[in-house]
Amino acid sequence: PFQVSVIYYLYPCRGLGLTIAVVLLLAFVERPSSLSVTSDSRYRSPPWEPPCGFTESIEIVCLLIFTLDLAIKSYLIGWDEFKKNKWLMSYTMVISISIIDWVLSISMVCDEKLRVRRLIRPFFLLQNSSLMKKTLKCIKRTLPEIASVILLLALHLCLFTMIGMLLFPKTEDPLKNQEWKVYFRNLPTSLTSLLVLLTTANNPDVMIPAYSQNRGYAIFFISFSVMGTYCMMNLLTAIIYNQFRGYLLMSVQTSINRRRLGIRAAFQVLRSHDAENAAGERVPIDAVLQVMSRIQMQSYYREAITSVRTRQYQTEGFMNREQFKQIFDELDKDRINEHPPAPQYNSVVLQKLQVIFSHSYFTVFGNAVALAHVVCICTVLVLNSDKSTGERDNLYMEIINMCFIIYYLSEMCVKIFALSWKGYLSYRNNIFDGFLTILLLVLQITIYVIYHGVFSLWEMVRFVNVLVVFRFLRIIPDIKLMALVASTLLDLVKNLRAFAGILVVVYYIFAVFGIWLFEGAIKPPPDMSMENITSNFSTECGTYEQLGYWPNNFDDFAAAIILLYDVMIINNWQAFMDAYTRYTTEWSKVYFVCWWFTSSVMWVNLFVALILENFTYKWDRSHSCSVTDVERIRYETS
Amino acid sequence: PFQVSVIYYLYPCRGLGLTIAVVLLLAFVERPSSLSVTSDSRYRSPPWEPPCGFTESIEIVCLLIFTLDLAIKSYLIGWDEFKKNKWLMSYTMVISISIIDWVLSISMVCDEKLRVRRLIRPFFLLQNSSLMKKTLKCIKRTLPEIASVILLLALHLCLFTMIGMLLFPKTEDPLKNQEWKVYFRNLPTSLTSLLVLLTTANNPDVMIPAYSQNRGYAIFFISFSVMGTYCMMNLLTAIIYNQFRGYLLMSVQTSINRRRLGIRAAFQVLRSHDAENAAGERVPIDAVLQVMSRIQMQSYYREAITSVRTRQYQTEGFMNREQFKQIFDELDKDRINEHPPAPQYNSVVLQKLQVIFSHSYFTVFGNAVALAHVVCICTVLVLNSDKSTGERDNLYMEIINMCFIIYYLSEMCVKIFALSWKGYLSYRNNIFDGFLTILLLVLQITIYVIYHGVFSLWEMVRFVNVLVVFRFLRIIPDIKLMALVASTLLDLVKNLRAFAGILVVVYYIFAVFGIWLFEGAIKPPPDMSMENITSNFSTECGTYEQLGYWPNNFDDFAAAIILLYDVMIINNWQAFMDAYTRYTTEWSKVYFVCWWFTSSVMWVNLFVALILENFTYKWDRSHSCSVTDVERIRYETS
Repeated sequence: PFQVSVIYYLYPCRGLGLTIAVVLLLAFVERPSSLSVTSDSRYRSPPWEPPCGFTESIEIVCLLIFTLDLAIKSYLIGWDEFKKNKWLMSYTMVISISIIDWVLSISMVCDEKLRVRRLIRPFFLLQNSSLMKKTLKCIKRTLPEIASVILLLALHLCLFTMIGMLLFPKTEDPLKNQEWKVYFRNLPTSLTSLLVLLTTANNPDVMIPAYSQNRGYAIFFISFSVMGTYCMMNLLTAIIYNQFRGYLLMSVQTSINRRRLGIRAAFQVLRSHDAENAAGERVPIDAVLQVMSRIQMQSYYREAITSVRTRQYQTEGFMNREQFKQIFDELDKDRINEHPPAPQYNSVVLQKLQVIFSHSYFTVFGNAVALAHVVCICTVLVLNSDKSTGERDNLYMEIINMCFIIYYLSEMCVKIFALSWKGYLSYRNNIFDGFLTILLLVLQITIYVIYHGVFSLWEMVRFVNVLVVFRFLRIIPDIKLMALVASTLLDLVKNLRAFAGILVVVYYIFAVFGIWLFEGAIKPPPDMSMENITSNFSTECGTYEQLGYWPNNFDDFAAAIILLYDVMIINNWQAFMDAYTRYTTEWSKVYFVCWWFTSSVMWVNLFVALILENFTYKWDRSHSCSVTDVERIRYETS
Repeated sequence: PFQVSVIYYLYPCRGLGLTIAVVLLLAFVERPSSLSVTSDSRYRSPPWEPPCGFTESIEIVCLLIFTLDLAIKSYLIGWDEFKKNKWLMSYTMVISISIIDWVLSISMVCDEKLRVRRLIRPFFLLQNSSLMKKTLKCIKRTLPEIASVILLLALHLCLFTMIGMLLFPKTEDPLKNQEWKVYFRNLPTSLTSLLVLLTTANNPDVMIPAYSQNRGYAIFFISFSVMGTYCMMNLLTAIIYNQFRGYLLMSVQTSINRRRLGIRAAFQVLRSHDAENAAGERVPIDAVLQVMSRIQMQSYYREAITSVRTRQYQTEGFMNREQFKQIFDELDKDRINEHPPAPQYNSVVLQKLQVIFSHSYFTVFGNAVALAHVVCICTVLVLNSDKSTGERDNLYMEIINMCFIIYYLSEMCVKIFALSWKGYLSYRNNIFDGFLTILLLVLQITIYVIYHGVFSLWEMVRFVNVLVVFRFLRIIPDIKLMALVASTLLDLVKNLRAFAGILVVVYYIFAVFGIWLFEGAIKPPPDMSMENITSNFSTECGTYEQLGYWPNNFDDFAAAIILLYDVMIINNWQAFMDAYTRYTTEWSKVYFVCWWFTSSVMWVNLFVALILENFTYKWDRSHSCSVTDVERIRYETS
């Protein structure tokens, strides 16, 4: 089993990741399918529905792969360990429930209303990532403290609701009843008003009727917001961040420890092969090289390990444990990007040209030209902003674009001449640049060849312009301060995987749940078709109908995702809550409040904590020496 | 001068703080005065305007006090130091400008349009607080990094604006032009739309017309929000927080160092008095005791220092430097709240009663009764929520209140019996409780005596009920988790002073500036008086007029503060910006964007940083041993 395990872990199961992705993406295709141009319920054409058995056949293949994976894993760790492992037990359960549900589905010819397996699918994603499991554990640890803040927040909300109801009763004078009428009519309304105020989504509106009567009432609302939104909500951020302090450092340490263990195990395995013909505590170089050639790893690491270090021991033919450990130290080193030497030209003219073209001012000039191009496009856009696409004369635009693209092309050729082909490609910046330049050229030629007479080809020109704007991003690495911030953001993306995974899980579950609960709940008035969309039908301001939120509904998976995203952003989320309360029952508020809490309170705070942790980690690393230093300090602190 | 300095610093200039408060508060009284019931421009009665010379005479007294303060300070530190100190130089300048402006004001019989001294008044607040100066320095240090993020943010905004204008041009089909028409008509409109989207204030709205046509457009808006709002804005938080890490620790260290220096100086001063009759390096106890009796300090510290430590050296009559230092170590110790012993009763019955009433279950029972009372009020409120105040029968309410208040009173008496008068007052909880109970009793008796026949006395009953709800907060210290969170929040308030000061400064400057720029800019339509407020006049949804934001204007100082607060909260701030753009010029956008940036971006991030710092500091202190420990670790890290 050890060897199977080594094989299973050395060839990382990329296939499994793909399977998970496929299973999760099925939600877009399954009924209700998201394959329509728009999700607007007013003028949505019936989407393409997959025939029965299409998604189901893909799904069963994926489920079988999961079963295989489970079988291998259980074989590897043995029954005793398997029983103790809660994740694997749940994995078994989830797979079996899915298969049972699948069979039911097939037997009902895909006409089932409730598809339980959709809801539990995200479990596969969670189960497959140790990072996500760790993050979940981290969240679990903060729960008691979070609960105390939530309790205080609930108390805060309840007390202010009562005080609000006492302050704004129905009075004799109907003119002074606005506040009571709209926001404090009864207990649920008052509670909702203040809960929404906690998210700031109805901020000035909720206090306007009262404030308009008397300035003093503003104190009530401001003290509620300051205590609730600013103090308590940010305290929640602090608590979550506090738990995640040192999270990155810990995960780096863990992965280093795990690698050490792995190297030790590999040594044992290779040694045992060799047990007969050697003194024991050493491994043959040949075996190491053979293994190295079959391992999946980035090529420069492999080269570094095999070429530099192993050669040293080539004469002996064996290496001992210490030596074996040392050759893998290469993995700790960051790749130093070595640029190949510039080509040597004999001609003096060529040499001078080479100096000119590889000078940094040449890059600056290139940036200036790119900026000029963007400014040109911007000017044309501003001048044409009132013309419709048909009226615009794209000829000038195309000529300008062509000139600039020719310059870009020549810049690229000249750089290749100065740095040689390999030298050019060794800069990431150049790859980005060259790729976009070639793409632009191809597009521009297409435009010329196919549609040269037809100047209304706005779509293509538009795409070219977007690419030009995009290409302008090449200036970022050349501005030092920006490069720093941009690299922090890029690093963030790397560390984001676990968090993004959790986000996917919660979005998936809430979207599937939302579709169950609210599919087709909101129906537009029958007289609203494509024609009279602009006609003003009278609805109250600020409602779902007046704001035209029709495309945000739970009628398919993609639309549900966007709706959930909009609620996560918080602004105007009360419009959604209000609409679904009116079209269904009061209880739909629970769903929206749950989602607000999960996404906006928990996840956004997690995200902020991650950014803080990432930035301070990077800062500490650049100011301290190495991981081990920080490790030592940490030990002394605790 | 040294002695003058000691006197000047030992008697902390409370008077100066009061003067600053008075000068700043003048803004509410000065023309345009805020002394009206409402700031709603539709039905505002003309406010009471102070006669010319009223505020001016107060102001000149304050300015003279500042001049005196400046004179003493400059005398103390000497001319050479004075010239180097930028703060003092600016102080001189600000005072002289204020006085010149004041003279001008008087000579024009208070009819001047521009009152420059109002704008520079907040400087007095800044100048007087070393904490605020330090915080400002801290902010200054982060500026380069903040600038780089802002630059990236600006690039992000510009590029997305261009892409947006390319994506949403005017098309041939007028039905598909909604997005162009409302949000991307021209460059300023597009830029504003996306800037507002960056603050999430127009989140689903801005993408609805495009999203309603095609799902794909959502990607543009979502990627803009995720990169801008989530990544870059939070990176700003991280950068500011990173600069404030260790801020609290540093300020604690600084204050300890400063105190050490002060004690050393005091020793020198006292020694010099004594130089003739003693060996030099020691001070007479009598002098110390004499000084101690005249110093302003909290009584328990004074007692601790004079009684416990000084007595030890009483026999000698002198103490040396080490001993002098040691007696002030008492200041480092937190006050341990000692409760006086419970009274001894001789009767067995009384003793048993004492045991019962001082038991913790008795407090729990008291909390339960308070909860029952709140629930009663809540029930009555919910039952009466549809009745107007005149229709409500307050008799039941008053009887219920009376019963509960009598219980509270007896609870209080019984506790005083069990703990003795002093023991009762030694718990802060009891003081809160007792004060509210007596207040409730007084109010209730007032209601009975004066208005016993008149049951419509809603205002009084309302106030009683609010107090009852407020009294319910006594449960917080009894719930452990809540007590923790609440104490963190209280600690926060203590550390908040510097930040609150800076907030006051920016609010003040922006409010005064706003009044200059926009006073009376928005005038309601003439036909809108008190009568036809409810009549629906047709305005576009989501505008200032439709939302009835009339009371939010720059017509007086208090209204301006509330408007700025509303913009700080972000939600619907575009309505204000849009209204002032329409009523004045396009340039008013600059004012609002500046305020958004100062308040919502900078200050709120500062606040979050403070909360994070506060919480992690508290956490570290409770997990580590002492300040010196953390200090040591910090030295090793750097």
